[in-house]
Amino acid sequence: MKITIGMFGFGRTGSVVAKEIIKDEICELSWVLRKSTAMEGKYASRLLGFDHNEGMIYSIEDIDSEAFYQDNHVDVIIDFSSASAIENYEQAAQYGTRIVSAISKYDRFHLEQLKALGKQTAVLYSPNITLGINFLIEASKVLQRIAPHADIEIIEEHFRDKRDVSGTALRIAEDLGLDKRQHVNSIRVGGIVGKHEVIFGLPNQTIRIVHESLNRAAFGQGAIYAAKWLMGKDKGIYTMEEAVALNFVNNTHVFEVDE
Amino acid sequence: MKITIGMFGFGRTGSVVAKEIIKDEICELSWVLRKSTAMEGKYASRLLGFDHNEGMIYSIEDIDSEAFYQDNHVDVIIDFSSASAIENYEQAAQYGTRIVSAISKYDRFHLEQLKALGKQTAVLYSPNITLGINFLIEASKVLQRIAPHADIEIIEEHFRDKRDVSGTALRIAEDLGLDKRQHVNSIRVGGIVGKHEVIFGLPNQTIRIVHESLNRAAFGQGAIYAAKWLMGKDKGIYTMEEAVALNFVNNTHVFEVDE
Amino acid sequence: MKITIGMFGFGRTGSVVAKEIIKDEICELSWVLRKSTAMEGKYASRLLGFDHNEGMIYSIEDIDSEAFYQDNHVDVIIDFSSASAIENYEQAAQYGTRIVSAISKYDRFHLEQLKALGKQTAVLYSPNITLGINFLIEASKVLQRIAPHADIEIIEEHFRDKRDVSGTALRIAEDLGLDKRQHVNSIRVGGIVGKHEVIFGLPNQTIRIVHESLNRAAFGQGAIYAAKWLMGKDKGIYTMEEAVALNFVNNTHVFEVDE
Amino acid sequence: MKITIGMFGFGRTGSVVAKEIIKDEICELSWVLRKSTAMEGKYASRLLGFDHNEGMIYSIEDIDSEAFYQDNHVDVIIDFSSASAIENYEQAAQYGTRIVSAISKYDRFHLEQLKALGKQTAVLYSPNITLGINFLIEASKVLQRIAPHADIEIIEEHFRDKRDVSGTALRIAEDLGLDKRQHVNSIRVGGIVGKHEVIFGLPNQTIRIVHESLNRAAFGQGAIYAAKWLMGKDKGIYTMEEAVALNFVNNTHVFEVDE
Repeated sequence: MKITIGMFGFGRTGSVVAKEIIKDEICELSWVLRKSTAMEGKYASRLLGFDHNEGMIYSIEDIDSEAFYQDNHVDVIIDFSSASAIENYEQAAQYGTRIVSAISKYDRFHLEQLKALGKQTAVLYSPNITLGINFLIEASKVLQRIAPHADIEIIEEHFRDKRDVSGTALRIAEDLGLDKRQHVNSIRVGGIVGKHEVIFGLPNQTIRIVHESLNRAAFGQGAIYAAKWLMGKDKGIYTMEEAVALNFVNNTHVFEVDE
Repeated sequence: MKITIGMFGFGRTGSVVAKEIIKDEICELSWVLRKSTAMEGKYASRLLGFDHNEGMIYSIEDIDSEAFYQDNHVDVIIDFSSASAIENYEQAAQYGTRIVSAISKYDRFHLEQLKALGKQTAVLYSPNITLGINFLIEASKVLQRIAPHADIEIIEEHFRDKRDVSGTALRIAEDLGLDKRQHVNSIRVGGIVGKHEVIFGLPNQTIRIVHESLNRAAFGQGAIYAAKWLMGKDKGIYTMEEAVALNFVNNTHVFEVDE
Repeated sequence: MKITIGMFGFGRTGSVVAKEIIKDEICELSWVLRKSTAMEGKYASRLLGFDHNEGMIYSIEDIDSEAFYQDNHVDVIIDFSSASAIENYEQAAQYGTRIVSAISKYDRFHLEQLKALGKQTAVLYSPNITLGINFLIEASKVLQRIAPHADIEIIEEHFRDKRDVSGTALRIAEDLGLDKRQHVNSIRVGGIVGKHEVIFGLPNQTIRIVHESLNRAAFGQGAIYAAKWLMGKDKGIYTMEEAVALNFVNNTHVFEVDE
Repeated sequence: MKITIGMFGFGRTGSVVAKEIIKDEICELSWVLRKSTAMEGKYASRLLGFDHNEGMIYSIEDIDSEAFYQDNHVDVIIDFSSASAIENYEQAAQYGTRIVSAISKYDRFHLEQLKALGKQTAVLYSPNITLGINFLIEASKVLQRIAPHADIEIIEEHFRDKRDVSGTALRIAEDLGLDKRQHVNSIRVGGIVGKHEVIFGLPNQTIRIVHESLNRAAFGQGAIYAAKWLMGKDKGIYTMEEAVALNFVNNTHVFEVDE
């Protein structure tokens, strides 16, 4: 049986994520909800070049939230829209729908709403939902624990016009307990999509964990991973790092020697 | 209280390891055992440029194995000599001495001896005992589990005169279930000390874990880590990967959001 | 005054190149010639999303080659179509039109035609016309001359489905006099667009020159560079490496010291 | 016939350089001049573990400068000592001896002396005399000329205890006309010997030139290259970049196509 998905957001990233969901063998895109009425009644699948109907687009303006989430029940809502969308889908939780939120930044008010939602259903929140970045963060934490005296520096490289320091790099620094202003080095050149490197320096060896983004479909694959992972979880609020970290456990070993 | 160490081997690598043990705050080098009688009666510390006496050097020829391990009891024996050394120190196990073996390759006979020793005391065996390489192996296994569809390639770079394919690279390939002839790429140029890179390719992102060796003192730090880790273990036979892997567990997360 | 360009080919790469030409301040796309009649009479600029008319599309079937190149004279023809296109535009040479060919591979017959064309006008031929790759080749040759004892290895990384060894990597090996089977290492993983690395190993230092492709617009910028460079050349046949190499000359130095 | 070398300085770097000179097939170490009298009368070769006599050590205190440079004529003096050494060897210039100076930093006074010396003999001055770094600088200048719109960033990585920003990185920035405070990124971790990377970012491609130091013998090979190069030069004052740059010239091409 497929995992049914409802999607909030169909912009630059949202549409790429929708495409990945449609292509996934286990997931099915039930619907897309948008603020605008512009594409209302069309199928996301058709707009994305597929030959079948999947992911009817609705406008928030024209639905009755109470009835909608019951009549159009989905297993998981994936949210790539904006912070305030949560006001809309909190009714869905009462029908057992789980939530994956990839919103970049919540204000205090909406964050409280998200936490409240975690008391009714399973919620995973991650501002950077790619598998690779979350692996990088978790592996870095482990290495820091193994080699507590290592010096650590972060290099992030992005295209020339990206103004701010990478939020992901700041998150890595925070997770490793590093002073963000001291240890995050930003490179802005040409058209680099996104590269993050964590360098661990020991007196006699150097270890580097490097993540390179090729395009934003990586977000779709991360969201799908999160949705699948969340299907086995009780209510509560989770992070992507956690979804990845559990793979670091139960790493049992058998003693073997090449002969 | 310090962890007392007995050392087998005082060659090119062994002497560097001994130096790291002497410098370590928690470990103490009780003695060094050698086949040759050449440096008998001297202190390893003095030969390595320290100003105090630590690590008296004995020759296997001139000791009574039975009495020696009782009279010169140590918490851990670290072995950087050769496969046959195990014949000598198996008596030590009965006095509770634990064993860290960094021998490159055991034949079947000595491997059986090592396994037998694991029934009397705690034994850790690792042909590449650096922290960084074992972290790289464990992290790679985890990433393979998170992203089972990723393509994986290994690049190893070493100095021009290194003839064989890196044993470490072969071990990585084996641990990841990769065909060694297909997926290990060997670069031989100039004076590169040793670099191992594992590349994980996904459709939309690339992840690289890179280890660079700067010098062989990295072995000393690995051996010390292994010795300390082994102090808390029951009898049995362990690997360095395991000593590192346990750090990947209990990675608990608290939900936090920047506000 | 602008450099006027006629373009052969409007496929996956050709259309991206046309877009770069339209965007360039010094170049102007006069026309596009195609085998097919499909887009005949349309403007390339419109098809590529611009708001003005530039680059009328013609079909080879419907033009009179003799008259066409006189009536629609251009300074440079840029060819991203196929080997046989040369049969069509050789008449253009008699009106002083220069030729930039980026065809991947010529057979003997068409290669002779290209050489013959070089006796009438200035022709630049390069199967990989990006600036970066040609810089990498030239710089590698220079470094090999400075450090003739260096060991050299080439690593090329591309997406999983690329079957053949990178033609660019083979060209680099050839230019450096290296055995292609021994010194070109191919990595095939995930979605890597294209990366070429030349490693120079000396006993006490390692030098790496690395080129990463982000997308195929790099071909457009290379072709424009070639067109501009060719404007100052007499008849003859040139390579992109040469267009780049001349920048390596006249590197005069003034003695200066920080005080 | 061999190139005879006189050496100033026999400290940490100087002695490694002397060793490379002794090992070189074309160069011969005639003598070493030191301030101290400590090793006076010994052979550098013996102190460095060779089995023959080469490079008698003299003390400046005990020689007559006037007679010494005539009686002990050498083709080239290589100076790895300190800025004031020039006061001592300026007499050597009148006997046709050429000068290679690798002093890190000259004050104004000694710099004037060096310039004056350039009117009598051929003088090469370079604070970083490795081949690799000078290649990196020259190649970067060339690439900047080919791709003037590229964004350029410099990353330098060194061991934890290196306090200052790398002088070499500052020199690269200066040579490329970059604001040093904006474009030099310093990484300080563990035991990294020395790595310099220049990143050129274009909209559709990225080019990296990377230099990694393995140990200080690289200085010896650079000094030997400089000495050999200087043998063919008239009086004047030269830089290492220039010695390397001339290899970038006369890069003639023959048109060839694989068939």
